[in-house]
Amino acid sequence: MADSPNCDLKSLSPLQLFERVTEQGEKVRALKAGKAPKDEIDAAVRMLLSLKLSYKTTTGQDYQAGLPPKDLVLINNGTTKEEDEDLVDPWNVQTSNAKGVDYDKLIVRFGSSKIDTDLINRIERAIGQKPHHFLRRGIFFSHRDMDQVLDAYENKKPFYLYTGRGPSSQAMHVGHLIPFLFTKWLQEVFDVPLVIQLTDDEKYLWKDMTIEKAYEYARENAKDIIACGFDVNKTFIFSDLDYLGTSAGFYNNIVKVQKHVTFNQVKGIFGFTDSDCIGKISFPAIQAAPSFSSSFPQIFNGKENIQCLIPCAIDQDPYFRMTRDVAPRIGQPKPALLHSVFFPALQGAQTKMSASDPNSSIFLTDTAKQIKTKINKHAFSGGRDTIEEHRKYGGNCDVDVSFMYLTFFLEDDDRLEQLKQAYTSGELLTGELKKVLIETMQPLVAAHQERRKQVTDEIVKQFMTPRKLAFEF
Amino acid sequence: MADSPNCDLKSLSPLQLFERVTEQGEKVRALKAGKAPKDEIDAAVRMLLSLKLSYKTTTGQDYQAGLPPKDLVLINNGTTKEEDEDLVDPWNVQTSNAKGVDYDKLIVRFGSSKIDTDLINRIERAIGQKPHHFLRRGIFFSHRDMDQVLDAYENKKPFYLYTGRGPSSQAMHVGHLIPFLFTKWLQEVFDVPLVIQLTDDEKYLWKDMTIEKAYEYARENAKDIIACGFDVNKTFIFSDLDYLGTSAGFYNNIVKVQKHVTFNQVKGIFGFTDSDCIGKISFPAIQAAPSFSSSFPQIFNGKENIQCLIPCAIDQDPYFRMTRDVAPRIGQPKPALLHSVFFPALQGAQTKMSASDPNSSIFLTDTAKQIKTKINKHAFSGGRDTIEEHRKYGGNCDVDVSFMYLTFFLEDDDRLEQLKQAYTSGELLTGELKKVLIETMQPLVAAHQERRKQVTDEIVKQFMTPRKLAFEF
Repeated sequence: MADSPNCDLKSLSPLQLFERVTEQGEKVRALKAGKAPKDEIDAAVRMLLSLKLSYKTTTGQDYQAGLPPKDLVLINNGTTKEEDEDLVDPWNVQTSNAKGVDYDKLIVRFGSSKIDTDLINRIERAIGQKPHHFLRRGIFFSHRDMDQVLDAYENKKPFYLYTGRGPSSQAMHVGHLIPFLFTKWLQEVFDVPLVIQLTDDEKYLWKDMTIEKAYEYARENAKDIIACGFDVNKTFIFSDLDYLGTSAGFYNNIVKVQKHVTFNQVKGIFGFTDSDCIGKISFPAIQAAPSFSSSFPQIFNGKENIQCLIPCAIDQDPYFRMTRDVAPRIGQPKPALLHSVFFPALQGAQTKMSASDPNSSIFLTDTAKQIKTKINKHAFSGGRDTIEEHRKYGGNCDVDVSFMYLTFFLEDDDRLEQLKQAYTSGELLTGELKKVLIETMQPLVAAHQERRKQVTDEIVKQFMTPRKLAFEF
Repeated sequence: MADSPNCDLKSLSPLQLFERVTEQGEKVRALKAGKAPKDEIDAAVRMLLSLKLSYKTTTGQDYQAGLPPKDLVLINNGTTKEEDEDLVDPWNVQTSNAKGVDYDKLIVRFGSSKIDTDLINRIERAIGQKPHHFLRRGIFFSHRDMDQVLDAYENKKPFYLYTGRGPSSQAMHVGHLIPFLFTKWLQEVFDVPLVIQLTDDEKYLWKDMTIEKAYEYARENAKDIIACGFDVNKTFIFSDLDYLGTSAGFYNNIVKVQKHVTFNQVKGIFGFTDSDCIGKISFPAIQAAPSFSSSFPQIFNGKENIQCLIPCAIDQDPYFRMTRDVAPRIGQPKPALLHSVFFPALQGAQTKMSASDPNSSIFLTDTAKQIKTKINKHAFSGGRDTIEEHRKYGGNCDVDVSFMYLTFFLEDDDRLEQLKQAYTSGELLTGELKKVLIETMQPLVAAHQERRKQVTDEIVKQFMTPRKLAFEF
């Protein structure tokens, strides 16, 4: 029957199906209101019922007008199950597990791919050197289309890196450095241009903050980012509030994305409600647009089709799932992604570090003494209650925050393995493990502070000026 | 009782009340979910019930979650009544009345003020010359805060003009000229800066059109606007797609508006639905932002508080009701407005002219012969069926489109009055009235075409380049 929509519906996501049902419902109402011929109305109603059936089969829920489907896991046999164990979106990360979020489940739920040994080996062959310890240790654990980026690289086709930060306060903590440290390494081994977005407009929209304050935080945060050691000839850092008013190419891409995403979609992806301001509702397009090289005509000479690779924490993936959905519809390549795990709070891996709680984090402005006190006082221990028990049964590295921090910041693989074995066997005590962490973090933060002092306003201005970089396109 | 919210609720609009109920409902849910103390929950519930009662008293409707109040007329005695006779919003104008939309009712519904003889006399005194015939003949018939603009003018305080156009096609018709002809007159008599917005982004979002086409139409339309005779030293014309990427001041104001308007509000004002794209939903902020002088730092030297006056057709008022609602919350003055009636289609005053139906309008590109044929063939006549009846009973100027057009374009008051009397008495036949219109429109359109030929791409570029104008701020 020509009416049956089932053939082409199987490939649709629950949300796309929801949209189809909604549209068809509107069509039926319009036909009825316009007093259309009876057989035409009947055909439209049959189609509507058929779509509702497909929706129910796919989601396990009845269609309800105005209520898009909840985020669902498709289990292999086609049945569905709600996933409410871990909460992960751009504004919330919560889990009840002391080991942190279950990342294997997240890969299934988000539909991304695991960074496995094969991929890590391929990267090693492509760049001709040992991959970064963030890759070797599973800190960057998930990806989308990284093979395509490597294909391009091996065929001498250009690509570029895009990452970013929401400047919610002046103070950045060591966890904020993870994507930047990794991005810096990627830029060095692949020798490609990098754009870094500071979403000061987002922070103004979400927080109780003036526009001037948000912009000031953006420039302050830029100093910490620059202090990671980026090359000014290969890197463009921009504040949205600034750059949007400097580049018609950027705004054109924003409007293109905004035309191809409905409120239903952002409601489904980000959980927006009718009481949210229209700025929040349209913001996802602003984080999407730097994924397209035509947003930076000064860098890419106006070229439209240059592949983008985005290293970011996994909580930012919803923005880029949306971007990848829109990309082909506006004639642009989908950005590839590399996802990192969350950096744990000192108090434990149940939540992400927060810039608003000074004791949840080691800040880039902390003194050696503050670092020592914070780690000794607040770092959640996987050790035993008494020395005797610890010596007998050993500590638990899976929940020990000091050990977790060392996997991020201690580069020496052999040393890390020794510490793990000694701690697990009970040979190494909690206080001794903390001492190693303190001695690792103190010089690291001090060196950052030293480099940051060298970053003058003039240098920030250079990084933030739209210009050609040291690449030909 | 401290709980009673009634004291400060009387000044709230139905929509603001709706938002308050929604927020309070969310608060109650949060308290319950967080297992707050019983007395705290009870107090919040009492407040919620009280707010719902206020909502019902004001709107005559029960509060329904997710359904903002419909556009309502508040009748003097406080009861309410739905107004569904004429449909007027930025995309639709429909009435069943051959005389056109009932503008007196619209003034009540929109809450604007009538331009009465007192105001026209005050304008005449302020400028020391006879007001434009669009004012004398009620073509600009409604206003908001025009007295404040005149206060400012009399106290030598600066103000500026803002008008615009949505460039939906290359072809403009004579009706499109009305706001521009009037704005030109205002600019001349008050000697003030003028900004003209071409909403090419809006057309891209609403129509099946590429971004390049929308931008091309914007530049083509700019030529017709410039051909009205604007002074390049006092006028800045801008395309959104272009200017948004040139002015951080403009984008900052857009984000400020977007932070202070919710989806519920634009749903209530513009009728957006969950299936609309996020570009449409956030667009109203882009039409709002030029009402604030800080969107044009190059013209106003960064000054924030310069009064804006917007001459426009009444269907654009919803954008500026929203703007006026937001203005004080972002520390900006409310723009003042002058509203025109709609220009009727040749076929009758039931609808606005449409650029997509070539026979509904006299286009600025029509030849003398086309003008003659269109008027003779399509202009709806208020004359009688036979010459005998016409001579005996006379014609009806209230529904005669030729006469309506003459009120727009025949500047000579005495001549117009003579024609009215002669047609009403039956002395003048329909064919003779149409002849007067043809002889009025042919030279007017020919002269426009002649001026448009002089408008080179170079001149367009001058008008559209952000720059200082011939005024000191």
